[in-house]
Amino acid sequence: MMMPQDIDLILQEALLYGRSFLSRGKVADYIPELAKADPSHLGICLILPDGTTCRAGDWNVPFTMQSIAKTFSLILALQTVGYEKVFSKVGMEPTGDCFDSIVQLESKQLPPFNPMINAGAIVTVGCIDLPDPFEAFLDLVRRLCFHDAIRLNEQVYLSEKHSGLRNRSIAYLLQSDHILEGDPEQILDRYFRMCSVEVTTEDLARYALILANDGLDPVTGGQMIDEWIVRIVKTLMLTCGMYDESGEFAVKAGIPSKSGVGGGIVAAAEQGIGIATYGPVLNKKGNSIGGIHMLEYLSGKLNLHYFANKTCTSV
Amino acid sequence: MMMPQDIDLILQEALLYGRSFLSRGKVADYIPELAKADPSHLGICLILPDGTTCRAGDWNVPFTMQSIAKTFSLILALQTVGYEKVFSKVGMEPTGDCFDSIVQLESKQLPPFNPMINAGAIVTVGCIDLPDPFEAFLDLVRRLCFHDAIRLNEQVYLSEKHSGLRNRSIAYLLQSDHILEGDPEQILDRYFRMCSVEVTTEDLARYALILANDGLDPVTGGQMIDEWIVRIVKTLMLTCGMYDESGEFAVKAGIPSKSGVGGGIVAAAEQGIGIATYGPVLNKKGNSIGGIHMLEYLSGKLNLHYFANKTCTSV
Amino acid sequence: MMMPQDIDLILQEALLYGRSFLSRGKVADYIPELAKADPSHLGICLILPDGTTCRAGDWNVPFTMQSIAKTFSLILALQTVGYEKVFSKVGMEPTGDCFDSIVQLESKQLPPFNPMINAGAIVTVGCIDLPDPFEAFLDLVRRLCFHDAIRLNEQVYLSEKHSGLRNRSIAYLLQSDHILEGDPEQILDRYFRMCSVEVTTEDLARYALILANDGLDPVTGGQMIDEWIVRIVKTLMLTCGMYDESGEFAVKAGIPSKSGVGGGIVAAAEQGIGIATYGPVLNKKGNSIGGIHMLEYLSGKLNLHYFANKTCTSV
Amino acid sequence: MMMPQDIDLILQEALLYGRSFLSRGKVADYIPELAKADPSHLGICLILPDGTTCRAGDWNVPFTMQSIAKTFSLILALQTVGYEKVFSKVGMEPTGDCFDSIVQLESKQLPPFNPMINAGAIVTVGCIDLPDPFEAFLDLVRRLCFHDAIRLNEQVYLSEKHSGLRNRSIAYLLQSDHILEGDPEQILDRYFRMCSVEVTTEDLARYALILANDGLDPVTGGQMIDEWIVRIVKTLMLTCGMYDESGEFAVKAGIPSKSGVGGGIVAAAEQGIGIATYGPVLNKKGNSIGGIHMLEYLSGKLNLHYFANKTCTSV
Repeated sequence: MMMPQDIDLILQEALLYGRSFLSRGKVADYIPELAKADPSHLGICLILPDGTTCRAGDWNVPFTMQSIAKTFSLILALQTVGYEKVFSKVGMEPTGDCFDSIVQLESKQLPPFNPMINAGAIVTVGCIDLPDPFEAFLDLVRRLCFHDAIRLNEQVYLSEKHSGLRNRSIAYLLQSDHILEGDPEQILDRYFRMCSVEVTTEDLARYALILANDGLDPVTGGQMIDEWIVRIVKTLMLTCGMYDESGEFAVKAGIPSKSGVGGGIVAAAEQGIGIATYGPVLNKKGNSIGGIHMLEYLSGKLNLHYFANKTCTSV
Repeated sequence: MMMPQDIDLILQEALLYGRSFLSRGKVADYIPELAKADPSHLGICLILPDGTTCRAGDWNVPFTMQSIAKTFSLILALQTVGYEKVFSKVGMEPTGDCFDSIVQLESKQLPPFNPMINAGAIVTVGCIDLPDPFEAFLDLVRRLCFHDAIRLNEQVYLSEKHSGLRNRSIAYLLQSDHILEGDPEQILDRYFRMCSVEVTTEDLARYALILANDGLDPVTGGQMIDEWIVRIVKTLMLTCGMYDESGEFAVKAGIPSKSGVGGGIVAAAEQGIGIATYGPVLNKKGNSIGGIHMLEYLSGKLNLHYFANKTCTSV
Repeated sequence: MMMPQDIDLILQEALLYGRSFLSRGKVADYIPELAKADPSHLGICLILPDGTTCRAGDWNVPFTMQSIAKTFSLILALQTVGYEKVFSKVGMEPTGDCFDSIVQLESKQLPPFNPMINAGAIVTVGCIDLPDPFEAFLDLVRRLCFHDAIRLNEQVYLSEKHSGLRNRSIAYLLQSDHILEGDPEQILDRYFRMCSVEVTTEDLARYALILANDGLDPVTGGQMIDEWIVRIVKTLMLTCGMYDESGEFAVKAGIPSKSGVGGGIVAAAEQGIGIATYGPVLNKKGNSIGGIHMLEYLSGKLNLHYFANKTCTSV
Repeated sequence: MMMPQDIDLILQEALLYGRSFLSRGKVADYIPELAKADPSHLGICLILPDGTTCRAGDWNVPFTMQSIAKTFSLILALQTVGYEKVFSKVGMEPTGDCFDSIVQLESKQLPPFNPMINAGAIVTVGCIDLPDPFEAFLDLVRRLCFHDAIRLNEQVYLSEKHSGLRNRSIAYLLQSDHILEGDPEQILDRYFRMCSVEVTTEDLARYALILANDGLDPVTGGQMIDEWIVRIVKTLMLTCGMYDESGEFAVKAGIPSKSGVGGGIVAAAEQGIGIATYGPVLNKKGNSIGGIHMLEYLSGKLNLHYFANKTCTSV
């Protein structure tokens, strides 16, 4: 069995490995606020089932969740309106298209998308039937990350709201096709707010720990999310969580993960381990290039692939 | 821990459950020979790591592998020319399109497909750099199924070869785009032969047992397939193995599986269990409707979902 | 040479022929106000170069222009900002897709559309660089139809504005791709207003007379539109004016025409003849089913196909 | 009225104008034999209704018809099996896609293509129900060009046949969809032969003269093609004859024309004038760049746009 200091060492190696790829990508620039991120930043946090927390690099730099919010909004939608309602509005299939694709909405059978791409996530947010959906979302994030100070980044939210023309286009198309119910502008406003909630890798690693343990928090012993919901969320992270690089990442790392263009990745690994990475330099698919490589490195070193030989040494 | 007689009982229940869906689908008719299958047939075979074999229904009716052959041809391609060569020719991403789609070849970045759909499988077969690729394929199937009498069904092969216009179209398009090397007619002939190899659920369950145990045969103790190859094959089965129903099946059953329009499904489950089903009645996506429901039933009863709570009772 | 009474007779025959198709289509229902139209209505007006005006059926029933407005907005855009500017923003190619397609915006090279489909027309309206574009549009319509009382139908406009989700989706996508400049909501408002201007077949036949005579009004002798603009407008009417039925209509009728889902068609025929039809029952392509058949009938009877043998008897 | 010497002068000017664009394109290279063409070649031939023939530049260099053959095969199909049969197999709509697109075959309603793109032309060739379709085709070409020595270029045919993978893919897809009847290899062989028939601009201008005069040869006075067939062919040339540049060419030149990647363009102009150009340097759309510009020049100088003011001076 591994000791925390061994893991600290491996995290340092992962960091070195991840950094070697930073020159091959670039910081997201489609929202002015995101373009301000420091391209040299790279950080990671890993939490073991006993609560041992290992950190490396810029693990403490705050960033907005962006698409990682899609996992929380899916949990909230499943909790409030249930499986049948949510999956009558949104599908479960990977698309092979990029995250903000519109083509698939028209050319394929509706609803062909899944809750991990923009169109599906907007529909999922629209399903949340609560008086104040964003407040409920923020409350859920704070509880699952065990961090009450988590809050909205106002500048990013406003930047997002102002620049989100493509998402606006998607929302009106969905309403035109009677898939999105309610006022598109209001739903988009919630969606943009959710994307703009600010966290650190430690916040997300804490959340990943719960996902990795089937909804049960191994530190406090509390069942934080229903097991059936975790199963759905992790499966969708695995098949669709890394945009149109999901298939390749599933082969190489084999860890159910969700990335955001803010540079974060949340990863719920085998052996009940929670991981999160941050690095704002993205590859062409929109995934953190440093984060992806750190997770691939860890998967090999710590035997975290879900199809890894379970009889081999584990952490 | 479960006894074989408990499992026999559960298989009977699964069979009853699966049968209740048979009226909702129909036998494949795009190849005349396949249309001759008996729609009432439904069978299953499950093998435990200790070699205990449980059978139910029409487990012994022979059927042609069809798309299940894609898993064997991928193993053979990886064994003969290696990871780099194979994945320079074929991608790893799910497509969201149906199995014989051509659109994706033109409208998305090449090579966007994966080895589990027709286009990708034809390319994979084209990669196998051996004097007699089909002989090597048949030899591999016989070894992994522990059954030397497995052979080609000539009628199905000829029917396939004669009717396979769409695959012919795909092959010429791939050659036109310089992705397929070699003579398309020769590669198609191999592809059609591979699809037409005849097996039973017991044959495939034996093969699934090896996949479920990371390439090591738990009965004989021999490493039958390299662990890294099994990892790739199982991941692709999981993300792309059930055509454009892969995402939904991953959520519901959570067992890396590959189906064929001949009615078979091979499934490499958690806990080192190998399973195969047969039922020629297909749903609209081209998957055995009885097979899918039997596997979903077993996943729930035996806790086989890869994201199931591992601390619950297992087989 | 034909006498007006001969033409009156032919119009009556055309009307009978057109009526025989009314049961095969239905009134547009995507905007509540349009659904109120009387499906039995069918009318036609034809004006000869000497000003002789022949009318038949419900020629005097008012209807909103809908897509016919696209010809006026193209004229206005070409007049105000010129050829180079307009065609840097919008293409000239037929699409083969339906009028409100979004797919083509994403899957084909931008800008692939033309000013006769919604996306292209919205861009064209956005090009009109005037203090009050709608006022200028209405003024142009009144001048070219020689009818000062033409005005906006407020109910249709409001219905349009409220229901136009798909056009809203298109506008935001175009802005996202930096093709549409300015405020999408403001441009859409103008677009919806233009579509909702109410006319009769006599109004449009008067306008068609000018188009049919290369911009010169043969009655007053005034050059109402520059000849080069008429040439562009008529060519685009011919290749793209009847949605994805343009090719077939060009073969069968061979008259540059533009239809609207309000039930109108404006047609600038050979021999300097202006024609307009009205019939709210549409076929599956969105064209007035009675109008199309009346125009085909007239094309044959009066030798109006632009590739008809010019040496044959003419009107 | 213009004198032949005036036209000779205008052809020289057109030639100079056309040459100025040659550096912006390149010779087709997808078939090895075509790549051997001399990029400096540019020629034109124009024939007046009285038979006066004006020639300039490399008017006498032989070239293979390529897609220009599509107009002859459409005539032959309409003559042998009639309107109903042909247009039950192939549509009339422009596609907006490039000439050898496969996407449209799958994503749009069948049959969405037209006889001027590869898929539609292959179907059209398949419709010709004669003992020796190629012999009949060659005979038709010789009669309409008034040149008995016209023959197949064997090298180009063999090169075409060997390299035509994409067309082979299209043919098998069409057969798979039950649109193409008969043996695809045999139909493709005919199609490749037809494309490889060798002509000069004078041959094609003679043919264009007939098209321009509604099927009647003004020199001999014989009705060479039925008027209704000419009307269809010219309309399809106009809407679809210049690949996905048809709309723009219709606006700019306004002459029903058909181009081939061999560098030829045949153009049936207003005033009963037949024109053909040759220049193997193509633009990105696959049209002869010199030819297109020469035709645009002539259209302006000789008032040949079908929507040109008919009262202006004509040739």
